[in-house]
Amino acid sequence: MRIALRVIGIGPGDPRQITLQAVEAMADVDVFIVLDKGADKDSLAALRTAILDRHAAPGHRVVVIADPPRDRRPVDYDAEVRRWHAARAALIADAVVAEVPDGGVVAFLVWGDPALYDSTLRIVDDLKQRPEFELDVEVIPGVTSASALTAAHRILANRIGEPIHITTGRRLPDTPAGADGNQIVMLDADLTFRHTAHPDDEIWWGAYLGTPDEILVSGRVGDVGDRIAAVRSEARARLGWIMDIYLIRKTR
Amino acid sequence: MRIALRVIGIGPGDPRQITLQAVEAMADVDVFIVLDKGADKDSLAALRTAILDRHAAPGHRVVVIADPPRDRRPVDYDAEVRRWHAARAALIADAVVAEVPDGGVVAFLVWGDPALYDSTLRIVDDLKQRPEFELDVEVIPGVTSASALTAAHRILANRIGEPIHITTGRRLPDTPAGADGNQIVMLDADLTFRHTAHPDDEIWWGAYLGTPDEILVSGRVGDVGDRIAAVRSEARARLGWIMDIYLIRKTR
Repeated sequence: MRIALRVIGIGPGDPRQITLQAVEAMADVDVFIVLDKGADKDSLAALRTAILDRHAAPGHRVVVIADPPRDRRPVDYDAEVRRWHAARAALIADAVVAEVPDGGVVAFLVWGDPALYDSTLRIVDDLKQRPEFELDVEVIPGVTSASALTAAHRILANRIGEPIHITTGRRLPDTPAGADGNQIVMLDADLTFRHTAHPDDEIWWGAYLGTPDEILVSGRVGDVGDRIAAVRSEARARLGWIMDIYLIRKTR
Repeated sequence: MRIALRVIGIGPGDPRQITLQAVEAMADVDVFIVLDKGADKDSLAALRTAILDRHAAPGHRVVVIADPPRDRRPVDYDAEVRRWHAARAALIADAVVAEVPDGGVVAFLVWGDPALYDSTLRIVDDLKQRPEFELDVEVIPGVTSASALTAAHRILANRIGEPIHITTGRRLPDTPAGADGNQIVMLDADLTFRHTAHPDDEIWWGAYLGTPDEILVSGRVGDVGDRIAAVRSEARARLGWIMDIYLIRKTR
């Protein structure tokens, strides 16, 4: 079956941070595939529903795919992630066959930008290899949470001419000297900077960016590190989930 | 005088890659300040005019500030950039005083995202320190050219869990081992990857992203490196300017 498949970046959370191209791309989608990450992200699901109510065609359908189980502390991280992606892709392929008409349009909405720490494009690569589909794939870029963070703090990501390193909490301790001048850190439940940064380094932290729950904290690591940890766990307990990101800049 | 100052990211070139928030922010601006980079970027100026015609209020004004002269090969790069930014900020301050009413709204449009290798926020920091202004600054994030590049090629920026290093052609040779797995390189007129990459590394290159002149080339560096150089100089000669970016991924 021939299918138009769109991977649509919808920005980091503020429904106004969606592009005109994404709005246009949502308008004639038959089926939106939603990957259910579990009950703890109800607020994100509500935000997504509001976006679809506003921009999708009246007759659109939403198919929710429950996430297959995943080992969060595997011995081989890459292999476990690949196994988990393959299990998810199989569920999605079944749903597309069952729900999308031949010649139809199916879409995935991705928070932020589809190129950054998101697995939807890996799922699409898997779907492309299945003989039952002939896919016309289109990817629509979105505003990243990194851009939303720097805009909220009204700062540049880099000092003049300097590089920027984007990494995860898990990989932060591995950043080599010379690449650690300006780091944007995502997916860091442990706030790893508290073990890697110098107290004189500067940090700009943000959570729930672009939503009514947005929280911003910035300052010298030695001054605000503990406060970020306290604010983070308080908010996570109160709201039931958290999505945060930070920029850390080495002092010269 | 009290002024609302907006720094508005308008994405990398495709007028559809503008956010709803940017559209809203353009709607009641009194004066747009445009930094004139010289006659060789007429196409970008035409694109910007089309964006303003569509989204700005009918009575808006556009003030063009000619770029002060700059030494492109200075002994002290940072100092020369700072001197040049200060000269530009002084011209802009004069223009704001002359053109914007007290209580008015002034805006800068920034291609891509204002946080990434753009100097507008440095100019704003300078304006903030001038006693004649009381500024309410708002920064509106935009889609980066990095996101437009990966979307056009339909790829992820990173392999599973890996960091991403964003740098310039000038700094590319300085990227330390361990940070060079996935690099996004901007501002590289010399296509420096030809001297730093292994022939087996993969590259995804793009120019004029999101415009009718968009060009994409990808492949193994050893296979497509020379072709990128040839395509780039042909396009630059034909169109009179070029804006390009690439992602380079180290082979494992």
